[in-house]
Amino acid sequence: MDAIDRARRDLVVANRILAHQRVLDAYGHVSIRHPHDPTRHFLARSLSPGIIATDDIVEFTHDGVPVGREARPLYLERFIHGAVYEARPDINAVLHAHAEDVLPFTISSVPFRPVIQNAGDMGASIPVWDIADNFGTDTDLLVRTVAQGRDLARTLSQNRLALMRSHGFISTGRTLNDLVRLSVFVPRNARVLMAAMRLGGEIKGLHPGEIAARLAIDPESPAMRRGWEFWATEAGCGDLLGG
Amino acid sequence: MDAIDRARRDLVVANRILAHQRVLDAYGHVSIRHPHDPTRHFLARSLSPGIIATDDIVEFTHDGVPVGREARPLYLERFIHGAVYEARPDINAVLHAHAEDVLPFTISSVPFRPVIQNAGDMGASIPVWDIADNFGTDTDLLVRTVAQGRDLARTLSQNRLALMRSHGFISTGRTLNDLVRLSVFVPRNARVLMAAMRLGGEIKGLHPGEIAARLAIDPESPAMRRGWEFWATEAGCGDLLGG
Amino acid sequence: MDAIDRARRDLVVANRILAHQRVLDAYGHVSIRHPHDPTRHFLARSLSPGIIATDDIVEFTHDGVPVGREARPLYLERFIHGAVYEARPDINAVLHAHAEDVLPFTISSVPFRPVIQNAGDMGASIPVWDIADNFGTDTDLLVRTVAQGRDLARTLSQNRLALMRSHGFISTGRTLNDLVRLSVFVPRNARVLMAAMRLGGEIKGLHPGEIAARLAIDPESPAMRRGWEFWATEAGCGDLLGG
Amino acid sequence: MDAIDRARRDLVVANRILAHQRVLDAYGHVSIRHPHDPTRHFLARSLSPGIIATDDIVEFTHDGVPVGREARPLYLERFIHGAVYEARPDINAVLHAHAEDVLPFTISSVPFRPVIQNAGDMGASIPVWDIADNFGTDTDLLVRTVAQGRDLARTLSQNRLALMRSHGFISTGRTLNDLVRLSVFVPRNARVLMAAMRLGGEIKGLHPGEIAARLAIDPESPAMRRGWEFWATEAGCGDLLGG
Repeated sequence: MDAIDRARRDLVVANRILAHQRVLDAYGHVSIRHPHDPTRHFLARSLSPGIIATDDIVEFTHDGVPVGREARPLYLERFIHGAVYEARPDINAVLHAHAEDVLPFTISSVPFRPVIQNAGDMGASIPVWDIADNFGTDTDLLVRTVAQGRDLARTLSQNRLALMRSHGFISTGRTLNDLVRLSVFVPRNARVLMAAMRLGGEIKGLHPGEIAARLAIDPESPAMRRGWEFWATEAGCGDLLGG
Repeated sequence: MDAIDRARRDLVVANRILAHQRVLDAYGHVSIRHPHDPTRHFLARSLSPGIIATDDIVEFTHDGVPVGREARPLYLERFIHGAVYEARPDINAVLHAHAEDVLPFTISSVPFRPVIQNAGDMGASIPVWDIADNFGTDTDLLVRTVAQGRDLARTLSQNRLALMRSHGFISTGRTLNDLVRLSVFVPRNARVLMAAMRLGGEIKGLHPGEIAARLAIDPESPAMRRGWEFWATEAGCGDLLGG
Repeated sequence: MDAIDRARRDLVVANRILAHQRVLDAYGHVSIRHPHDPTRHFLARSLSPGIIATDDIVEFTHDGVPVGREARPLYLERFIHGAVYEARPDINAVLHAHAEDVLPFTISSVPFRPVIQNAGDMGASIPVWDIADNFGTDTDLLVRTVAQGRDLARTLSQNRLALMRSHGFISTGRTLNDLVRLSVFVPRNARVLMAAMRLGGEIKGLHPGEIAARLAIDPESPAMRRGWEFWATEAGCGDLLGG
Repeated sequence: MDAIDRARRDLVVANRILAHQRVLDAYGHVSIRHPHDPTRHFLARSLSPGIIATDDIVEFTHDGVPVGREARPLYLERFIHGAVYEARPDINAVLHAHAEDVLPFTISSVPFRPVIQNAGDMGASIPVWDIADNFGTDTDLLVRTVAQGRDLARTLSQNRLALMRSHGFISTGRTLNDLVRLSVFVPRNARVLMAAMRLGGEIKGLHPGEIAARLAIDPESPAMRRGWEFWATEAGCGDLLGG
């Protein structure tokens, strides 16, 4: 199996894992940068992540145009992905999701921040993008244009995660596994932070040095890959592992 | 398959989806207006939504009387559906549900409102109907008569959603898919709003122009139908899709 | 099938439903009064409700002694059931459970009360039994004796439900279906009440006349039996329905 | 089947139960002391608990070195287990987990404590270990060395449970079943305590005499083993029971 086939297959696994873990539901999408051509990426056609197969994966240029003929409907918000790949050569995988437990932080003035070790690599700073800031208060909140995608990417800046007001978030990975692992723990971190705040006492988060130490862990080391193998099995696509 | 058979089949799918998504449980019901005769609608006999099949679908006039002989028990609250169809020619599908996460807003003085984009089409105004206002404080809270159904429909007015005190809600759709999609996101919006309020900070909801923009989206466009296809598959009735 | 066989079979279904609905988990138990002999009742041997079969059902006198030889371990807290049957000739089914969402009300000074229509028949008054009141602060909190069971039954008095401090609750039914239906909605009512309280506004509960109206509904009418049929199917014991 | 084979098989069952009960997820691990040699213990190789089989169980000395050749990756945090076995001859099973509902108490100044009877045997005192206290604020929070494991074991002291700041907890058992049962109820106790606190009233916990009475129950009595049998069946490894 060559690198392109592996990328497409792994993207199917990522879709299934993130759907099974309820990071994605009927909506949301995940992409991977083309392994040979950094100006392109792979993303599914418009379909729910839980039922995506290899044939549903489409190659795109970073302005959201499919490479080759593609008659099937595409995600309206596909411009998110290319804009991040353009702005961030260090990033090779992108997720846009609406995971429910993250949403409160997209509409609240209370900041989101890492409080558990396995989400420490979300980084110390998590910006919030409000589409109304540059595109007015009459949009349907969807990222429907290249310009909107680039505006979101500017807010993301050098961070790993950006929240989107009343909408969801984007997360990024150095590898696809890195993205999936982080994205599973982001909603968990949100639940823990919300529950701790409701307890009413003082809260200890992660120290800056601890966040840095988490970011320094090799995302492809065995411990960091343990989730991928297990979650794929749980999601019913263990047969797509390996190679 | 003709329009009537398709309406009956789609109503089975809607029941299964809404049960699987926990919008409905053992109780609650969903209906569709007759595709040829606007004075009639289809609704199941008294049965839990998760186990309804095509044979369980009954044709009703809007005063809740079955068309043709029907010896099986009927939903006590079937009068809800006809009353809404009578009052709202623009509406072709109606749901009555008790989804748990919406219930707190039916008994609290804190108003329900859209805060996430995918629930933006619930509209800006969500009235609360209290059966005690016009029918006294000794009812069992069920909508057992045509008069009670019409009173509820008057409270609904031109909105898409009305809460029912200590009981549940009704939601409406221009199409059946429109109804199902909205109804899946209504409890999610409730959970996000509740969680954001508990954070204790300021909350940004949707701007009026954003709500209008969400309502302007074609409910039968591919993006708005994506959920139906996925949820039906998840609910185990993917074989009833198509045609 | 005679009345005794039917009672035993229905008790298996009740166990399975309550386990599947997470009212019961590995622990907790449900009983039914003997259909011919009001001085006896049926209850399982010591086994988790989700895996109980007909052979596990044992006949007991109300002081918790098995009728006939029984070498298998018995529930330590079986004395709860007989004590309620003794004190309440109107009651034909009893549950003891630890459903998690009810537990906060067993340790809080905030009173539990019905706020949703389908739990209205829990009644207006829900006493809390504290084993420490009459048996001291050195027990393991289990109802291990006839005397403790009778003390609990005295606290229950003429109500349908009694909470047990740091432990759980007992609920009662005129019929087994009546018990199961109520017991499914009791934790749901707890969740809705807790969520509404957290919203911070004013809360409307049920009016006394509404509670009375709910209690006046025939517990064996088709609408009140709808849950049993659906939940049994969901719990995988639809084959035990009927007759 | 000899004692060693039984220990290994039971450890597989414990892994599966704790994964199915969501005490463990992709991460976390459980061990058992060697039945004949108190200076050794069994623990899986680096693998998610839900997919562990007998072949994955490795024998370790208490400094975390595998007995015999072992080329497969090992848990980075395996040093936790040996350190507890060294310090606590009364303990024969150890768990390290990140169960989500316990995490808020690891970062909050509000103390964790038993409030429900089935978690009463967690004991009256639950220390919190902060890795930063003795190892600085630049670690990745993982217990990567024998010294860190021993520091954690010192904080555990004579208690059954210790929380780990921003990370998770360790729990201990006199037997493996004792550990599993406690560990299932610890997150439940956390949920009940959090929910009761949010109610805003006064809270009654367990009396010291009640905690002592719970700890005095034989952990291998039929009532205390009931969960193991049921949970193993639910987790799909009922075939590994018995003998």
